Amino acid sequence: MLRHVSVSGPCSRSAVALATGLNKTTVTSLVSELQARGLVMETGPQHAGSVGRPSVALALDGSRVGALGVEVNVDYIAAIATDLAGRVLVDRRVGFDAMGSSPERSLDELALVVEKTLADLDRLGVTPAGVTVAIPGLIDTITGTVVVAPNLGWHGVAVAERLSQAGIRPDIPIVVDNDANLAALAEYTSGSEAGTSDLVYLTGEVGVGGGVISGGRLLGGADGFAGEVGHIMVDPAGEPCRCGRVGCWETKVGLAALVRMATPDRAYGMGRQIVRDPEERLAEIEQRRAEGDPRVEAAIAEVGRWLGLGASVLVNLFNPRVIVLGGYFARLADRLIPAARQELTRLGMTGAVERCRFVASDLGFGAAARGAAGVVVERALSDPTAISIRHPLPSG
Amino acid sequence: MLRHVSVSGPCSRSAVALATGLNKTTVTSLVSELQARGLVMETGPQHAGSVGRPSVALALDGSRVGALGVEVNVDYIAAIATDLAGRVLVDRRVGFDAMGSSPERSLDELALVVEKTLADLDRLGVTPAGVTVAIPGLIDTITGTVVVAPNLGWHGVAVAERLSQAGIRPDIPIVVDNDANLAALAEYTSGSEAGTSDLVYLTGEVGVGGGVISGGRLLGGADGFAGEVGHIMVDPAGEPCRCGRVGCWETKVGLAALVRMATPDRAYGMGRQIVRDPEERLAEIEQRRAEGDPRVEAAIAEVGRWLGLGASVLVNLFNPRVIVLGGYFARLADRLIPAARQELTRLGMTGAVERCRFVASDLGFGAAARGAAGVVVERALSDPTAISIRHPLPSG
Repeated sequence: MLRHVSVSGPCSRSAVALATGLNKTTVTSLVSELQARGLVMETGPQHAGSVGRPSVALALDGSRVGALGVEVNVDYIAAIATDLAGRVLVDRRVGFDAMGSSPERSLDELALVVEKTLADLDRLGVTPAGVTVAIPGLIDTITGTVVVAPNLGWHGVAVAERLSQAGIRPDIPIVVDNDANLAALAEYTSGSEAGTSDLVYLTGEVGVGGGVISGGRLLGGADGFAGEVGHIMVDPAGEPCRCGRVGCWETKVGLAALVRMATPDRAYGMGRQIVRDPEERLAEIEQRRAEGDPRVEAAIAEVGRWLGLGASVLVNLFNPRVIVLGGYFARLADRLIPAARQELTRLGMTGAVERCRFVASDLGFGAAARGAAGVVVERALSDPTAISIRHPLPSG
Repeated sequence: MLRHVSVSGPCSRSAVALATGLNKTTVTSLVSELQARGLVMETGPQHAGSVGRPSVALALDGSRVGALGVEVNVDYIAAIATDLAGRVLVDRRVGFDAMGSSPERSLDELALVVEKTLADLDRLGVTPAGVTVAIPGLIDTITGTVVVAPNLGWHGVAVAERLSQAGIRPDIPIVVDNDANLAALAEYTSGSEAGTSDLVYLTGEVGVGGGVISGGRLLGGADGFAGEVGHIMVDPAGEPCRCGRVGCWETKVGLAALVRMATPDRAYGMGRQIVRDPEERLAEIEQRRAEGDPRVEAAIAEVGRWLGLGASVLVNLFNPRVIVLGGYFARLADRLIPAARQELTRLGMTGAVERCRFVASDLGFGAAARGAAGVVVERALSDPTAISIRHPLPSG
């Protein structure tokens, strides 16, 4: 019923009864419950043009219940809080060297960001319906544990358990999921390609992750591990990857590869070390590019070529309509996309390639946190009874 | 209603009404229609232990309506006809050099096989509910046209249109789909791993195709082209593929690769030529293996290694529980699987690899035709009104 009000906009109790097949007594009783939880409000009489008493219209009162999405990545922690209508209430990004910190230290920082954002919501009179945490790694979503997050150096890190000990109210559900999967959901619900039911999202960061929407559903696989694009082998004669394998796609298109080729004088050591400050490295690459450094253009073209090669594998296997480029890929899209397009056309199955486009994400680095908040909203609309309101309206 | 009777077995009209939410008058009326179409029969009184008049039980009468699945592959045309209960009524396999024939010639042969099998069904008093054709290529399923089938040398071949001109009754729907997708459906519904909701099926033939079941649904992609595993690039420094690209997986694990390595004295020319008689080549490989030819063992191990490498890409992207090996892969599974397993473990994401197994298909080369017949059965159970019975029961 709440979903109907949310999707259809203001409508009367009778209209809700008609549309949902519930009888009017049930609707009236449910509306009272949703009003008490601050999820539905009356918006004044709705003149439907019919004779008789004008009925009062109901609308989603998304403003008093919030959703919190948080992301831990190699060099930042991001938090986005929205209300149930998807309006952004808090947008926070904290630079943090998660790659160089212990998991315990990172979880402390994460808990701090979550607590601060929840306090913001409290001040706004908004009750959080849940927290979803995005992590670049394989996640056991049942227990909220990170099985492995190679670029964070995490193995078996119980994120949900740690947060639940951090003073977060026990009735606020904590969910942990893969960052690229959540970003793909954000693209599908609110990106520039929203509604495209076959879509692949790629995160271009130190690690390269993927999220796949197929037939309008997030592709999970048997364990929720589907779409792990970063470590598919694309070159048996390639360079060693920091995962221990050789020739992984990440060694060709991850930020470290770009830094190594574009600014070799900045590439100390291997893997992690190269991109200790991803934002700084990227800013430098953009600056040198503006100055006309030919190595930078060549490096971007080379990354683009490998991007297209890997994309040809994804197109043959998933047959998407769109490949959305996130993270640093979006920042360099003007040159990356033409190079990738050329290689994709050369290597992908003709029928599938012709109708597939690359586009740059316009959600920025906040895509995963936004998708995480979106998951909370979806759950709240599906099961509003799970929400226990903290700021009850004065009764009557 | 028909599906309920099919799944739940014999049950009374009252039980059907209760389970489906239809009222008894509607059920009685629908049952009459289904009886007239020969889809439902009465199986005598059902004593439910309750007082009152014993009710008559209804059961699926699958025996009078049939489903026809046909497959065109490089060296054979196969047809399997089943009744709606899935019992095989006709199983026909005709050796035919489709690779060496024009599309027109192949379609004539296909039409002949279909006509013969429909005549068999007619003699058995079975009305066909539809024909589904499996082709190793990209299919436009809306028009029933093969966009491209590289190993048949087909481009833009209108299979459904040609069959509809072949004297097949115009009320029998003709559907065309990808062979590996249909085989994956057959594995999911009736193979040894039936019910595994995340499953990848691989056809090992001259071409290598794939069908993906994810979350209990066939993965289609935007155009039904998903799962095209044969031409993913696995080795940029590899051999030319007959598709015009380089380093496709098919060049490493297709039958031509095995023939070239295992029996180099039999490998004349390239690609197609090598495997003009796939069955014969395979029989020879098996014979020489039995005689202890070391080249054969080495070749199978090498193919197994590449099978595992490609499988690691599939496991990272689809996170399946099982990879079902069909076609020639199944015939050599005893040695292929250990070699593939070792490489998969080395290259795949640990979390996803640990719980994924290779198994050999036990549906044989008939998997695609069987899946094709299964599609017809599914459609018939979903929409029995589309069936116009040819052999009406005497009324009364």
